[in-house]
Amino acid sequence: MKPYEHGGNVYDYEGEIIDFSSNINPLGVPEWIFDIIKKVDLTKYPDIKYRKLKEAISQYVGYSQENIIVGNGATELIHLFVRAFKVKRPLIPSPAFLEYERAVHINGGEPIYFRLEEDYGFKVNLAKLLLQMEEADSLIIGNPNNPTGQAIIREEIGILLKKAEILNIPVMIDEAFIEFMKDYKNYEALPLAKEHDKLFIVRAVTKFFGMPGLRLGYGIGSPSLIQKLEEYKEPWTVNALADAVGREIFKDEAYIEKTREYVNKEIEYMLYTLREIDYLVAFDTKVNFILLKLRTGRVNDLKQILLKKGILIRDASNFRYLDKSFFRVAIKRHEDNEKLIQALKEIDIKDLVEDKERVVI
Amino acid sequence: MKPYEHGGNVYDYEGEIIDFSSNINPLGVPEWIFDIIKKVDLTKYPDIKYRKLKEAISQYVGYSQENIIVGNGATELIHLFVRAFKVKRPLIPSPAFLEYERAVHINGGEPIYFRLEEDYGFKVNLAKLLLQMEEADSLIIGNPNNPTGQAIIREEIGILLKKAEILNIPVMIDEAFIEFMKDYKNYEALPLAKEHDKLFIVRAVTKFFGMPGLRLGYGIGSPSLIQKLEEYKEPWTVNALADAVGREIFKDEAYIEKTREYVNKEIEYMLYTLREIDYLVAFDTKVNFILLKLRTGRVNDLKQILLKKGILIRDASNFRYLDKSFFRVAIKRHEDNEKLIQALKEIDIKDLVEDKERVVI
Repeated sequence: MKPYEHGGNVYDYEGEIIDFSSNINPLGVPEWIFDIIKKVDLTKYPDIKYRKLKEAISQYVGYSQENIIVGNGATELIHLFVRAFKVKRPLIPSPAFLEYERAVHINGGEPIYFRLEEDYGFKVNLAKLLLQMEEADSLIIGNPNNPTGQAIIREEIGILLKKAEILNIPVMIDEAFIEFMKDYKNYEALPLAKEHDKLFIVRAVTKFFGMPGLRLGYGIGSPSLIQKLEEYKEPWTVNALADAVGREIFKDEAYIEKTREYVNKEIEYMLYTLREIDYLVAFDTKVNFILLKLRTGRVNDLKQILLKKGILIRDASNFRYLDKSFFRVAIKRHEDNEKLIQALKEIDIKDLVEDKERVVI
Repeated sequence: MKPYEHGGNVYDYEGEIIDFSSNINPLGVPEWIFDIIKKVDLTKYPDIKYRKLKEAISQYVGYSQENIIVGNGATELIHLFVRAFKVKRPLIPSPAFLEYERAVHINGGEPIYFRLEEDYGFKVNLAKLLLQMEEADSLIIGNPNNPTGQAIIREEIGILLKKAEILNIPVMIDEAFIEFMKDYKNYEALPLAKEHDKLFIVRAVTKFFGMPGLRLGYGIGSPSLIQKLEEYKEPWTVNALADAVGREIFKDEAYIEKTREYVNKEIEYMLYTLREIDYLVAFDTKVNFILLKLRTGRVNDLKQILLKKGILIRDASNFRYLDKSFFRVAIKRHEDNEKLIQALKEIDIKDLVEDKERVVI
């Protein structure tokens, strides 16, 4: 139940570092944010019901306030779902975001893992997944999934939800990254929340808007599901600053569109250039990060070499089913991405294997 | 397990309101806070280990970082204690802050309540409390206690802790308001954390510094207790802005001293003038709020009349062992306190009882 190592932990390192380990909007924070923050009245508790914030989210997602819950990042909502539904044996397609597993362990449970196969490009084999759901008390899916970058289209999500309904088990779909997708409209589960009482969709706000430091997420579900979650929720977890920013942020459609365009152009650039590097396998991705694999050597050595060049990557070896040859990089600004590519090209493979137990895959 | 009504909920009302329902530093936010907030880099996750923040707290409380945990207000830490120690049957001297009880209910438990007697000035009868501890799996105390304003001196806390040690049960002492006390040094449990492995002291930061909107609390305990809590903690719950402010706030000793002086002078003024009002009983207090009782009539009627005058009080009838005649007011700025006193003096008692079931106590 120990806290896991996550990305974004630049504080372990000294000096200027380009952080490819955390999957944040590369365009930075919209300028108007600071005008909002300056005006916040900190002498009041946040509205315990977050009415104005929920109203803003309501406009954005097209659901009414009784369908919406807000949280201290998506993470609070993930833990809340596990607690409220007393989740002990969820099925989790993996590798996956480590907090799913941790939330279940904290709650005294033990997940069942559905193995996403490398040979299958880490895509979900729907038939197999449906079969394995029989053993589970719930289903937890990252869509798109971290760290694989793969996603399940809505039609298939619909099939999973029908199965879940038959089994009468709750489903959490973590869409923390979905807004980075070019064709997110074919993937987001939003329209399905109308029909499925036990579907909980989790979204991150501050990640997409380049401000993970602010901590804001929200969730969508049926009124009965949301009410159940509220019963277990700690009060005031979204602070007054995140509340104030959240009320305005969804209106910035220009920023949203620009981000999507920028990120998707960079995904193409990154995949193309990464695939020119012989010692790497770059897996397909639908989102603002890429899973990579060393054909030879260990990521920890690569990580240390890159750190000396001021670049931090996410060692992905602590994800289930991945080993010491996997790492993840975020899509960043073009000039930063170029620096990463350049640094990777300069690597002498011998430095990754010399005098060390050779790992050939 | 429904969320409770707390104070500070000004959002239910329209127009300008002086909020006596939430117990916040009346001096407002120190000016330098805004310079800090402006400079925060929101594009990074907060340090998941909050090293610099813990360093600042460490200096303030005289314990090392391994004795310290930080949270999204004291509330997160209260819930965390209950979860980590699987608290099911704590003894809670009551009336008390409602989140203690709620945290236990969420966790599937049912507290035992130690009744703080009105006839005893809501003080703790130590011998009785010791006896009742035999039935409990833990002890949760607000010190000073909300809403009663009473406190237990450290010598007596020490006796409770020895008893807890014999019973081998954990103890949480919520000191969210302790820094408002004139003679807090005789009451704070800090020195006892060295000797008691299962003592957890919870402190609120942003309440004392007039910024409940920012959400920051911390807890102190033995390294083994803190480690246990960290295992159950959700990551990044303190956002980057609260983190940044928290690193500097304890250095503002002038503000801390000025607050203590101001509040304690106003306590004297308030008790003196409130006791001139015939229809009220004002209970003794050691801290920045006062529990009051109507000798006749119902608080809800009083609350509605005061709201029309732009004043919000805390109806205390949802606290255990209190009834419809109790309310709580915070100590605010002198000019606001005067307005409250004036408004209370103008009340015609008939408006509280006329045409209504008469409540005489």
